[in-house]
Amino acid sequence: MSMSGGGGLTFRELQRIILEMYGEKDAARGDAATFLWLAEEFGELATALRSGTQQELALEMADVIAWLTTLANIRGVDLEAALMQKYGPGCPGCGTSPCVCDPSEKP
Amino acid sequence: MSMSGGGGLTFRELQRIILEMYGEKDAARGDAATFLWLAEEFGELATALRSGTQQELALEMADVIAWLTTLANIRGVDLEAALMQKYGPGCPGCGTSPCVCDPSEKP
Repeated sequence: MSMSGGGGLTFRELQRIILEMYGEKDAARGDAATFLWLAEEFGELATALRSGTQQELALEMADVIAWLTTLANIRGVDLEAALMQKYGPGCPGCGTSPCVCDPSEKP
Repeated sequence: MSMSGGGGLTFRELQRIILEMYGEKDAARGDAATFLWLAEEFGELATALRSGTQQELALEMADVIAWLTTLANIRGVDLEAALMQKYGPGCPGCGTSPCVCDPSEKP
């Protein structure tokens, strides 16, 4: 996995890497079938969260992100742009950071 | 949301931003309760995938990533390190990019 610059892995780099690695298969599989794979990894994350080692937990989180990235590629979503839009101005609820939303709304 | 360097949003920057925004609440809530929030967003992602606008889909993906990042923060997982370990050397199944796994194993 090559990274440009050395400033850390960016969301756009991961989208490019996953596109290169799986793009052809992803396009053929489609979004609904890809969601099933993502859901399977989501279940494995729950297992690792409950009873896995720290290493297993970390790798299950990586798998969830990889399949979500695949889904973003298939549907043409720019994850960085989406994250900046939703969380860039601060908490979407209260608009600040640290979040000061009422705990009944955002515990 | 401030980014260092301008080379794009990195996973480590997002972990830091989410920690600053929600770290205190996250630590009090704990991992199991946080997984419930993540699961709720996961369901909303399915809805957006099926019937949402492109904008709604993008923002639901951002929410899933934000809650997964919260979970990583709570459990002390470095998402970049996990992604590099799992996907850095190529596809975890066949070790190359593009993936050449048999379609019966990785469609």
